[in-house]
Amino acid sequence: MSKRAYNFCAGPAALPEAVLLRAQSELLDWQGKGLSVMEMSHRSDEFVSIAERAEQDLRDLLDIPSNYKVLFLQGGASQQFAQVALNLLPESGKADYVETGIWSKKAIEEASRFGNVNVAASAKPYDYFAIPGQNEWKLSKDAAYVHYVSNETIGGLEFDWIPETGDVPLVTDMSSNILSRAVDVSRFGMIYAGAQKNIGPSGIVVNIVREDLLGRARSICPTMLDYKVAADNGSMYNTPPTLAWYLSGLVFQWLKEQGGVEAIGRLNDLKQRTLYDFIDASGLYSNPVNKSNRSWMNVPFRLADDRLDKPFLAGADARGLLNLKGHRSVGGMRASIYNAVGIDAVNALVAYMAEFEKEHG
Amino acid sequence: MSKRAYNFCAGPAALPEAVLLRAQSELLDWQGKGLSVMEMSHRSDEFVSIAERAEQDLRDLLDIPSNYKVLFLQGGASQQFAQVALNLLPESGKADYVETGIWSKKAIEEASRFGNVNVAASAKPYDYFAIPGQNEWKLSKDAAYVHYVSNETIGGLEFDWIPETGDVPLVTDMSSNILSRAVDVSRFGMIYAGAQKNIGPSGIVVNIVREDLLGRARSICPTMLDYKVAADNGSMYNTPPTLAWYLSGLVFQWLKEQGGVEAIGRLNDLKQRTLYDFIDASGLYSNPVNKSNRSWMNVPFRLADDRLDKPFLAGADARGLLNLKGHRSVGGMRASIYNAVGIDAVNALVAYMAEFEKEHG
Repeated sequence: MSKRAYNFCAGPAALPEAVLLRAQSELLDWQGKGLSVMEMSHRSDEFVSIAERAEQDLRDLLDIPSNYKVLFLQGGASQQFAQVALNLLPESGKADYVETGIWSKKAIEEASRFGNVNVAASAKPYDYFAIPGQNEWKLSKDAAYVHYVSNETIGGLEFDWIPETGDVPLVTDMSSNILSRAVDVSRFGMIYAGAQKNIGPSGIVVNIVREDLLGRARSICPTMLDYKVAADNGSMYNTPPTLAWYLSGLVFQWLKEQGGVEAIGRLNDLKQRTLYDFIDASGLYSNPVNKSNRSWMNVPFRLADDRLDKPFLAGADARGLLNLKGHRSVGGMRASIYNAVGIDAVNALVAYMAEFEKEHG
Repeated sequence: MSKRAYNFCAGPAALPEAVLLRAQSELLDWQGKGLSVMEMSHRSDEFVSIAERAEQDLRDLLDIPSNYKVLFLQGGASQQFAQVALNLLPESGKADYVETGIWSKKAIEEASRFGNVNVAASAKPYDYFAIPGQNEWKLSKDAAYVHYVSNETIGGLEFDWIPETGDVPLVTDMSSNILSRAVDVSRFGMIYAGAQKNIGPSGIVVNIVREDLLGRARSICPTMLDYKVAADNGSMYNTPPTLAWYLSGLVFQWLKEQGGVEAIGRLNDLKQRTLYDFIDASGLYSNPVNKSNRSWMNVPFRLADDRLDKPFLAGADARGLLNLKGHRSVGGMRASIYNAVGIDAVNALVAYMAEFEKEHG
């Protein structure tokens, strides 16, 4: 086997090598049962134990209060954009949305198809380089919920605070920063997150939903998209994505072994400071985001001269530093440094960036 | 590693050992790229080549005409039950459904939430042991489509013919018998199939849809559930379940290596004859289904005395013959003998059943 590369992909993203090794060793025969996890009935004792352990480990990691259900669903965050509205936005009601980048815009577009959406705040006046403070937000009095995206994967813009919405449930797309540091789940009505950044492979999405928000689905909501149906059936109204659920559970176990979200948060802080500090001190690289809104997980950066992009990427590839090309909608570079991307990867990246700057700067 | 068991699970079901071995060997490092398939961007050259090859292999296997799109979606057949109606049943229109068991009933219930459903035929008068011939069907003149389930996984009831619906598109849930033998795709408007029987792990569903049926989605259809959106984006409107897609592709490659659907069909015929012939000749076991409607994939059977169920299952488990317990809704036994369950497994099962009958018959 060749050496494992340093993988800075924005998602599907790097997974812990220990998780892959464990999955590999069990792939044909889970714990001596003579079959793979993906060949088991989802209702078998074996799989139910895997599913329940995954949920409990996630509950432990995020200290999820007992009045929240944890769901393992399909369709990714994009399907949630509809699902949130179909479950929580009454036909004649209104919802507040905060627009901070491409993903929150998509959430707004989709919700608008099903009801009245008020854009309570937008980062557009700041060219999406800063998040407007809550004093600038225009929240509705009668909103069914307030929705925001806690980390914009493409723009590299992250909330370092939790909005205060009183009795109005706060709903957040936490796909690209869930489990990256401690968060107070009790502040939210619902958190959802596609797995393919900090949880597991693509094809599974985690919802953490406060119980009082269940049972509000509109009549036009497909049964499979009704959170209450999912909750009442332990996320097994039909066959769930068992392999992805199992792999997510292995990631949760790994994260506990790393010391949990507090410990990984300290490491993530070190990683992001290492990279941003280097960028800020350099003469070749730059990141335009307001310092307090910079994403810990997704670090977009530009080279002073676009013509250097190609040689930069080629040199990175040659050194096993993969997937640094920025999103096609914004260009430049992006280093995604999720939980499974270690400080060694960040150090290797910085070393290469320094070397490249010395040659081309 | 312990011996691999014979796995008769109805789904998620046995996968070819060769596929699992291949996946295992590539799990940490796909073709020397230094990362797992599940760690790759779905838009990377590497993954796109995996995805395209999977589609092409499926097209080859089923001889899918060029005016059909092949989609790789999420949510399983249960989500399709809503999706079919949201895409193909106009608000003021009507659809014909044929009821042959538990899955077609679920499809009918879900579609009825979104429009006018006519149950054109039902197997109920036959206690779900026989499929009413088309001369008994009461098709509507103005139906938007006709829907049926080609194989009822729980009842073990399978169509050995394709309904004739003229210009009305024929839509079928082929989850549990797709790829089990040759089928004329051009007879259908759409075929859909959850993967976890003959395709791959759970968490992915394949749709084969005639192009003229795209673009009919209702305004209340979530964007992620719109077939045209999926088709226009190569099933990558958002991040697809890449690992499940890759594994499905490995199964398609394996199936081609077995000689394709004609060859596997002959083997499946041998397998089903071996098992049903043994059951029919025995004094202890019975299957109630009309012979021409017996499923090749799912063989439910009962023991003459229910009190023998427990010792039968215990003895089977001890011999590594797993997951023979019937669905909780019907009881008894069920042997699912999908493509990946070889004739050796069927022979081992029959040998055990004969031995058990000799002891307890």
